Amino acid sequence: MASPIDATHDAALTSWVESANDPATEFPIQNLPFGRFRRDEDGDWSIGVAIGDQVLDLRRAGLLRNTQMNQLMRLPRDARRVLREGISHALRTGSATESACREALVPQAEVQLGLPCEIGDYTDFYTSIHHATTVGRQFRPDNPLLPNYKWVPIGYHGRASSILASGHDFLRPVGQTKPQDAQGAPEFGACRRLDYELELGVFISRPNLLGEPISIAQAEDHVFGLGLFNDWSARDIQGWEYQPLGPFLSKNFASTLSPWVVTLEALEPFRSPFSRAAGDPAPLPYLDSPHNRERGAFDIVLEAWLQTDAMRKAGSPGERLARSNYADAYWTVAQMVAHHTVNGCNLRVGDLFGTGTLSGPAADQGGSLMELSDGGKRPIRLSNGETRTFLEDGDTVMLRGVCEREGYRSIGFGECRATVLPARSALAAR
Amino acid sequence: MASPIDATHDAALTSWVESANDPATEFPIQNLPFGRFRRDEDGDWSIGVAIGDQVLDLRRAGLLRNTQMNQLMRLPRDARRVLREGISHALRTGSATESACREALVPQAEVQLGLPCEIGDYTDFYTSIHHATTVGRQFRPDNPLLPNYKWVPIGYHGRASSILASGHDFLRPVGQTKPQDAQGAPEFGACRRLDYELELGVFISRPNLLGEPISIAQAEDHVFGLGLFNDWSARDIQGWEYQPLGPFLSKNFASTLSPWVVTLEALEPFRSPFSRAAGDPAPLPYLDSPHNRERGAFDIVLEAWLQTDAMRKAGSPGERLARSNYADAYWTVAQMVAHHTVNGCNLRVGDLFGTGTLSGPAADQGGSLMELSDGGKRPIRLSNGETRTFLEDGDTVMLRGVCEREGYRSIGFGECRATVLPARSALAAR
Repeated sequence: MASPIDATHDAALTSWVESANDPATEFPIQNLPFGRFRRDEDGDWSIGVAIGDQVLDLRRAGLLRNTQMNQLMRLPRDARRVLREGISHALRTGSATESACREALVPQAEVQLGLPCEIGDYTDFYTSIHHATTVGRQFRPDNPLLPNYKWVPIGYHGRASSILASGHDFLRPVGQTKPQDAQGAPEFGACRRLDYELELGVFISRPNLLGEPISIAQAEDHVFGLGLFNDWSARDIQGWEYQPLGPFLSKNFASTLSPWVVTLEALEPFRSPFSRAAGDPAPLPYLDSPHNRERGAFDIVLEAWLQTDAMRKAGSPGERLARSNYADAYWTVAQMVAHHTVNGCNLRVGDLFGTGTLSGPAADQGGSLMELSDGGKRPIRLSNGETRTFLEDGDTVMLRGVCEREGYRSIGFGECRATVLPARSALAAR
Repeated sequence: MASPIDATHDAALTSWVESANDPATEFPIQNLPFGRFRRDEDGDWSIGVAIGDQVLDLRRAGLLRNTQMNQLMRLPRDARRVLREGISHALRTGSATESACREALVPQAEVQLGLPCEIGDYTDFYTSIHHATTVGRQFRPDNPLLPNYKWVPIGYHGRASSILASGHDFLRPVGQTKPQDAQGAPEFGACRRLDYELELGVFISRPNLLGEPISIAQAEDHVFGLGLFNDWSARDIQGWEYQPLGPFLSKNFASTLSPWVVTLEALEPFRSPFSRAAGDPAPLPYLDSPHNRERGAFDIVLEAWLQTDAMRKAGSPGERLARSNYADAYWTVAQMVAHHTVNGCNLRVGDLFGTGTLSGPAADQGGSLMELSDGGKRPIRLSNGETRTFLEDGDTVMLRGVCEREGYRSIGFGECRATVLPARSALAAR
């Protein structure tokens, strides 16, 4: 088998698409993430690859026959590698097919970018021990981490219908809330503790049959790649509804997904060992493999940015709230796949996993406002003098992800953004 | 508007399909449930209606042009009523189209019955206060019902990929377990506390847009009908994994759905008032309507039957474990729809709700073995001398549902059955 790091990762590669050679682009020729685009609202989705500030239409470029992303994702990993090589060759400086491919280029600014694929079942995990500890401490100061955390990659099912492509704004949710110490009937109204969650999405490619678990050794063969994912959360609705069966209306009003899937192939140079702190138990055998120990994690720098309405009006692009790294998560992609299927559960092409909020070990590395504001008790001061405990109407949250490593060209994940619109009840009251 | 109880419900109606006039059939001409069938494994699904021991192929009978159940379900309620009337007329004794329809009849015994539709998102509710109380008592003897129960129709997202049509057996799941008082590492192996859950499935028909809640007054316009649903549960896996985000691998290995959807139109004569015990709070306004109070519940007698391997070998059809009634649930179908969307969450055609385990107020009306065996502490004695706390390999569970009311022809839900096969690990060890 060829080394997973190959000529497509060569830092010296350049493209005839000039914007792809800009040092600031997240989409150099070493990245080649897949997504779906269309030229107008009523058109069909086409499969494209981001290159600089352009999209390459794979079918028009003669690089792909099918038009369904879910079919492409189903391809065996070797076939996907061959496709990646073909695209890399076609886009390289000096490519023999440059003129044909030029016809298949569209500026990203001129197309609508959709969800990367048809999403089947969506599962959200809870893989950041730092997030679980910080949130747990707010409820149980002496015993923040539950006894199962270091053994079980905790996950729960989420709602697929309300997953939105980046750029689709959503209304602040409405619902029942009741503070823990309140008496009498719950209140009903717009959410007051609206939060974002900085996550990665994991796109499942090849399916398994019901009753046939995917071993950890095979797990990554069932994964297409990663995207940015914001699992918006209504903390006050969550606090009242979540016992005993978990979050429901506090999560399913909207989630935002980035349009580009950065493939596992593109991420090969940015792998990290899977690490455990001293005293942590070794994973059970079904969650353990040499590959996972040595290369199971990914070094991806993640950021959450906030642009308030006032910032937008002042022409400010917003400011960074926090930065974390996916390599700090407690459970890896392969462990999520192996755990999800160990009971026989079947995954299907296009299923999506969320990693759960990815926070770092430091207090300023929280992947949500609940962490950064200590449950709303300590407002965050923004550079323009505004403060936030939770999100206000007009706030735009943008997630970013970048992989950087010496000797390699940096690659990025593109944009995952949406703006909070006033609640329907507020609109009706105007 | 015509009365919802119309000529299609007339108890005097008979069909030229003789088996439909058998007093024992669950599918008289007053029922007309929809399902999907095919003649062989590789064929496409067709839409059929159960009539006696036959299936009427709606397209071959000239009663329907489309072949997609999800398209049929999307039809406005008035159009679905017109279709029901057309089918009823075609199947009545003396029908002018009898000979054409005869060509479109197939014996149920000769076809494969599938899932009724393509299922989108699946949500499981927890609408039986008797179930919630009995289960809660096992964990919190002094305070069985959580404070949110009488205000919030508790629900959580489930897994759609592993929902099986009746008759598809499944392997006992494998996973991590750890009794509450145990020390050290969790165990890994086959589930030892496998249970069934006696539920109804609610099929969503017309979608709503994200951000546009469905009012309780409109809620039933978004529902196609009901089926039987068994939400198999691994109680030992559940006990170890479910904190803090709810059940996951303990549920998603398999659920079993009956092939026939009994429409809301067919259920009209069996409606009941929505009742609350003295002292229970009135529902919040978004969960309350005159229609819901007067006719929001359904009087459906539900039963769970067990056929052990020994019974099967002895030629016994099994025995009834419990009987309950859907009218004893705390929250109605319309309340589930209104609650699910009040935060703006969008439903899509083909989405499925589970009602949650439907137990009655008496101790012998538990809809699961966890209830009937008091958490495994009191084995059930079966008539052949066997005992059960939880399910054993080879056990077949069958759910049944029947509506009976004086002055109306009884209608039934057909079969919802599956057998527990040995765990994969047990197979490998042989």
